[in-house]
Amino acid sequence: MKAQRVEMFVCPSATPADTSGLQKLADAGKITADTLVALVGKTEGTGAHDDWGRVWADVALREWTARLLGVPVDEVARHVIFVLSGGCPGVITPHIAAVPREWVDVPDGSGGGEKRPVVGRAGPAAIAPEEVGRMGQIHKVAEATRQAMKDAGLTEPRDVHLVMVKVPGLTTGSIKDAESRGKTVVSHDLTFGPEGAGAYANDAAALGVAMALGEVPEASLSDGVVRRNWDLYSEVAMTSSGGEKRHGEVVIFGNSSASRSSLTIGHAVTRDFIDAQGVRNALRAAGLRFKDGLPDEADLQRLVHVFAKSVIPGSDQVRGERITLLDDPDAYQIGKALGGMLVASVTGRTTNYVSGGERNSHQGPPGGNIVAAVVRVG
Amino acid sequence: MKAQRVEMFVCPSATPADTSGLQKLADAGKITADTLVALVGKTEGTGAHDDWGRVWADVALREWTARLLGVPVDEVARHVIFVLSGGCPGVITPHIAAVPREWVDVPDGSGGGEKRPVVGRAGPAAIAPEEVGRMGQIHKVAEATRQAMKDAGLTEPRDVHLVMVKVPGLTTGSIKDAESRGKTVVSHDLTFGPEGAGAYANDAAALGVAMALGEVPEASLSDGVVRRNWDLYSEVAMTSSGGEKRHGEVVIFGNSSASRSSLTIGHAVTRDFIDAQGVRNALRAAGLRFKDGLPDEADLQRLVHVFAKSVIPGSDQVRGERITLLDDPDAYQIGKALGGMLVASVTGRTTNYVSGGERNSHQGPPGGNIVAAVVRVG
Amino acid sequence: MKAQRVEMFVCPSATPADTSGLQKLADAGKITADTLVALVGKTEGTGAHDDWGRVWADVALREWTARLLGVPVDEVARHVIFVLSGGCPGVITPHIAAVPREWVDVPDGSGGGEKRPVVGRAGPAAIAPEEVGRMGQIHKVAEATRQAMKDAGLTEPRDVHLVMVKVPGLTTGSIKDAESRGKTVVSHDLTFGPEGAGAYANDAAALGVAMALGEVPEASLSDGVVRRNWDLYSEVAMTSSGGEKRHGEVVIFGNSSASRSSLTIGHAVTRDFIDAQGVRNALRAAGLRFKDGLPDEADLQRLVHVFAKSVIPGSDQVRGERITLLDDPDAYQIGKALGGMLVASVTGRTTNYVSGGERNSHQGPPGGNIVAAVVRVG
Amino acid sequence: MKAQRVEMFVCPSATPADTSGLQKLADAGKITADTLVALVGKTEGTGAHDDWGRVWADVALREWTARLLGVPVDEVARHVIFVLSGGCPGVITPHIAAVPREWVDVPDGSGGGEKRPVVGRAGPAAIAPEEVGRMGQIHKVAEATRQAMKDAGLTEPRDVHLVMVKVPGLTTGSIKDAESRGKTVVSHDLTFGPEGAGAYANDAAALGVAMALGEVPEASLSDGVVRRNWDLYSEVAMTSSGGEKRHGEVVIFGNSSASRSSLTIGHAVTRDFIDAQGVRNALRAAGLRFKDGLPDEADLQRLVHVFAKSVIPGSDQVRGERITLLDDPDAYQIGKALGGMLVASVTGRTTNYVSGGERNSHQGPPGGNIVAAVVRVG
Repeated sequence: MKAQRVEMFVCPSATPADTSGLQKLADAGKITADTLVALVGKTEGTGAHDDWGRVWADVALREWTARLLGVPVDEVARHVIFVLSGGCPGVITPHIAAVPREWVDVPDGSGGGEKRPVVGRAGPAAIAPEEVGRMGQIHKVAEATRQAMKDAGLTEPRDVHLVMVKVPGLTTGSIKDAESRGKTVVSHDLTFGPEGAGAYANDAAALGVAMALGEVPEASLSDGVVRRNWDLYSEVAMTSSGGEKRHGEVVIFGNSSASRSSLTIGHAVTRDFIDAQGVRNALRAAGLRFKDGLPDEADLQRLVHVFAKSVIPGSDQVRGERITLLDDPDAYQIGKALGGMLVASVTGRTTNYVSGGERNSHQGPPGGNIVAAVVRVG
Repeated sequence: MKAQRVEMFVCPSATPADTSGLQKLADAGKITADTLVALVGKTEGTGAHDDWGRVWADVALREWTARLLGVPVDEVARHVIFVLSGGCPGVITPHIAAVPREWVDVPDGSGGGEKRPVVGRAGPAAIAPEEVGRMGQIHKVAEATRQAMKDAGLTEPRDVHLVMVKVPGLTTGSIKDAESRGKTVVSHDLTFGPEGAGAYANDAAALGVAMALGEVPEASLSDGVVRRNWDLYSEVAMTSSGGEKRHGEVVIFGNSSASRSSLTIGHAVTRDFIDAQGVRNALRAAGLRFKDGLPDEADLQRLVHVFAKSVIPGSDQVRGERITLLDDPDAYQIGKALGGMLVASVTGRTTNYVSGGERNSHQGPPGGNIVAAVVRVG
Repeated sequence: MKAQRVEMFVCPSATPADTSGLQKLADAGKITADTLVALVGKTEGTGAHDDWGRVWADVALREWTARLLGVPVDEVARHVIFVLSGGCPGVITPHIAAVPREWVDVPDGSGGGEKRPVVGRAGPAAIAPEEVGRMGQIHKVAEATRQAMKDAGLTEPRDVHLVMVKVPGLTTGSIKDAESRGKTVVSHDLTFGPEGAGAYANDAAALGVAMALGEVPEASLSDGVVRRNWDLYSEVAMTSSGGEKRHGEVVIFGNSSASRSSLTIGHAVTRDFIDAQGVRNALRAAGLRFKDGLPDEADLQRLVHVFAKSVIPGSDQVRGERITLLDDPDAYQIGKALGGMLVASVTGRTTNYVSGGERNSHQGPPGGNIVAAVVRVG
Repeated sequence: MKAQRVEMFVCPSATPADTSGLQKLADAGKITADTLVALVGKTEGTGAHDDWGRVWADVALREWTARLLGVPVDEVARHVIFVLSGGCPGVITPHIAAVPREWVDVPDGSGGGEKRPVVGRAGPAAIAPEEVGRMGQIHKVAEATRQAMKDAGLTEPRDVHLVMVKVPGLTTGSIKDAESRGKTVVSHDLTFGPEGAGAYANDAAALGVAMALGEVPEASLSDGVVRRNWDLYSEVAMTSSGGEKRHGEVVIFGNSSASRSSLTIGHAVTRDFIDAQGVRNALRAAGLRFKDGLPDEADLQRLVHVFAKSVIPGSDQVRGERITLLDDPDAYQIGKALGGMLVASVTGRTTNYVSGGERNSHQGPPGGNIVAAVVRVG
């Protein structure tokens, strides 16, 4: 019987194109062409859609990975999933987390021990422009989520702690394509604004995950609820969309008793934008030891990584008091920075994955956000 | 014998010109022409130097106060100190804190109980343009600090928990004035940038407080240490400067056993930009009850207000990890927002006074910031 | 027989609340309670929707006007139309233009001379939330435009050179109101983004003007063409919307042989974002003398004012070359600044009314913008 | 006898790393390893100092050039001068201009015809941190300017129309280095703000050019005049500085009767920020035909390129009217965009080199800017 041994290594980046940390991991044999399944990172730059820091990082990381794998650059995507989130405002250290997955032989029936991380992937699955932000996309992401669970060897939704999804958005070109075939699209706004195609794409992806995991009953879903009914949400879906993409991809992190990993993973949600307790709960869920209500300083060295969303709230009220964030032209940038601070003030480090950029989302409860944590065992 | 009874009332502001909260306090007799000594607030707007939200708030609050006091608008400054800090990015609720001080008769020799807040003021003291950011200003602020301590009835520096100082900066006009008299000025840069006159003015003011309170030995001070030797700093000085001003003013908050206030005040510093423990220490110092390492939720209703600086660090490292904040064109805005989050994530509320805008400062230790808290008794 | 004598006085503003220029006009009898019909201005500040510079200006100007008129502040809107456009980035001098209209006795049948400016107003007309951005609003603005033409004594659409329209946008509250009555609204996006309610409101208003003036055949109009068919547009409509408004207002400037004004007005459009010739054409249309292809410097002193839109293009191409404006997070701010430069580089002065903020619009041709100019006679 | 044949090819860039236009030139033999002397371009991105668009462009262009030249990447700088100016706000098309220089045999004494462009280079010359922004740097840039004139075969300063200079700025490291040797530095402010080391470096470089060309008498120069006496300036120097650099480089464009180029070059200055006439004068100086006071549309196809600075004015007045640009947090970005519009509105195209970023400069007269134009002959 084969069992997974999943690892996660976090490399700070000195520049967007810095691959020296990855190279050291490769040199040490910690990641190989056979084991590398995902690169997840925060890249410095504007965080806006013409963020050349992110684009450069993507180019440089793909070139590096192509060399590692010995394949052409345009085939890298078939082997390794890239999730690069642009923008490190405030106290978010630019970094890349490499996720290798090894298959080790274990005696049959040797499972049943403590649950440890496994990773699964699915995709690419084609999504048509007219499906973006609608039930078509929801169904396809749900299906990919189920496949990724299978790839991970996960059967129970409650064992899933983080689902990263990348889906197509819309572009002028893909809208023309759809309309030339007599189809409509969810929005002509190509931004991530409240009625933007990017936001609809992200949110339909989140609902797809929620449907697959049973967080939301299928019967409650329809085109009309996307970005309308905020009571429908996933507690584990972190999604992103790119206009240029035509396919969806999913990478899933869960816990399985069949895993031989030396890590644990857990998640929680914040209930509002200033809820440090939600972050602490994620660390607790991942097995970190606490002392006097706070993470035990000595145990924090076991913390491998934190993944958090920082969607800004749709309301101008936090615990009954007015804030002006929604009126701020830099709301998304500042919202992302605030999420970084909320996590860093709890973990005591700045190397956290915090992505943001939307206002309201089906990723996490209304006003709150998703936090997942990975902790090393022993 | 007369003893002080100091109060503090925090009114959220619906707009920059909103005086309705103050009016309710006046209608209820909680602040009067005889008792109001200071208005300290955060105003919404850009937080930049042409922040019309702050300017409009200043105009509207002075007009309101002139009516309360029955004096012309331009005499208000002689009776009430205004400290309005512009910019509420992120999770900082716009608000005005009104500070009334009443003198009550107490039996002679009745002091000696628990120490409670007193308030003292000094100024206006003229400061010449050539003194700005230099020893001349340091001496004058030190003298004003001593006077304000006297006005407060404070004799021990360790009883001082917050010193708010407003001093002149430089303008094209005041530089011309100085140079026409054969004097030099500290900088021709009128900004709050690292070599800006505004930053020098703020920092010499902080060193003036530090000198008066013995936090820094007088012998260690010279023109050359201002914005150079960061090991010299105050743990209680929050300073601001305005080019248009020609005088310095000081308002001081301390604890005295002669006070009859129903409040307590305390302070602490953060050791770096993500140090939530520093914020918690300030709440502890002010007497808030803790439970399991965190402020007791039930006791948090006794928290009246928090005053915090959010000076951005001069280094690109936080606990050994690189951040990109210093490269961010919006660094001051984001730095202020981050300070607001650090405080709000601990206090569980967004109505906190958090001011920022400089890079490095003699206000607080290198990389860290000052936090003071006021708690209601009983 | 009564004839109009319209004037226009442009007062630079030292601060948003500066009414000193207006007061001088009032002291000199140039504007009176009986004659003032409109205040049109550019206010300094962020130009974003929480622009406290604009809000403060609005408050201060209404208070001043109420005193001039001897009416309560909330009745000012019934007598004087305010068009305040926020944001003076770049080379746009903050200013207020006062428009007084006098009725003078002239002998019957004395018209027929040169056409000179007249002004007409209409409104307020109630517009329901479900009508915003749709045919309902188009019809109401068309009707108000016809009324304003009548009020101005204009019968020929070709004599109309500038129509300023203010209409309601949408708010969370007004959307709830509409939906509670079983109605839908044009967008849930409250911004001025490409699918924002503010943009739809502005554009339906422009189409209303275009319909009334016959610039667009009524048969070509439907809900579906708003912000879709850019070939439908007005060459004279400058429109703005405010969420808080519930009524539409129109002020129209045209030329009439019945006028006794000492001004002339004309307009033109730019064909793209860098088309200085379009600005020159507007000056020519208003009667300014040219020399060697450029406005005659000596004659430029007769130029009273220029009104221009600076809607940013929907394409990333200008004359076949790519620009990155659409990718810029500050696109609207920069687009407004660029419009200000285009006009100032032609007029040789910075006191021009230039308003912007949308991407694509039915105000002016695709990629181009509207420019109107007022010139003094003699 | 050898004569220069200088060419200039402008390639729009689809992305920062787009070298396809250069590759086409190389494939067509228009630029070769032997002829390429300079790449001058505008790169899209933030235009701030952590502009990853510019950095990525620099990396990609150097790699491409190394391949063209057949040398290691770190030797490229010895053969080809790179001047990449970051930020294309507004209507500035990202592009790279390639400058090849060929040496052709001509009969001795065959000069004396019409003057045509020549190019000369000098550097790298080491500049110590303590020299930056001071007389040390001025002298070294003056010397390099003289060498570049010699390399170009230019003897008369009036034949010089454009001098592009790159010099070191300061860094934390280079300041430490200087101070450890008992030296002082011009500023501890590492920005391009009014007292920033970057601005001092740029401006001392401009004065170095001005000294070499006799635009400014050597006797009038001292450390104290840099960024103080704005009456001292060059009309042809465009300078930039980078903290990481340790050497200065100069590339000079002038006219010589010995040249066999099919181009002409000329320059002029704008007298203030809205002076389109200054831009027209530069086109005229370069030999473009005018018609009715404007560039002849038919002749505009001969325009090869325009180089312009857009330094923002130090005053808040333009032709006696107040502007708010200096108060704008985005002043440099907007100022650059405005310069782009001023040029584009005259040239009728957006592919212009417009660099900005400082407030006040010795590059061009107070309030005005330098414009140089290159026109193809025949």
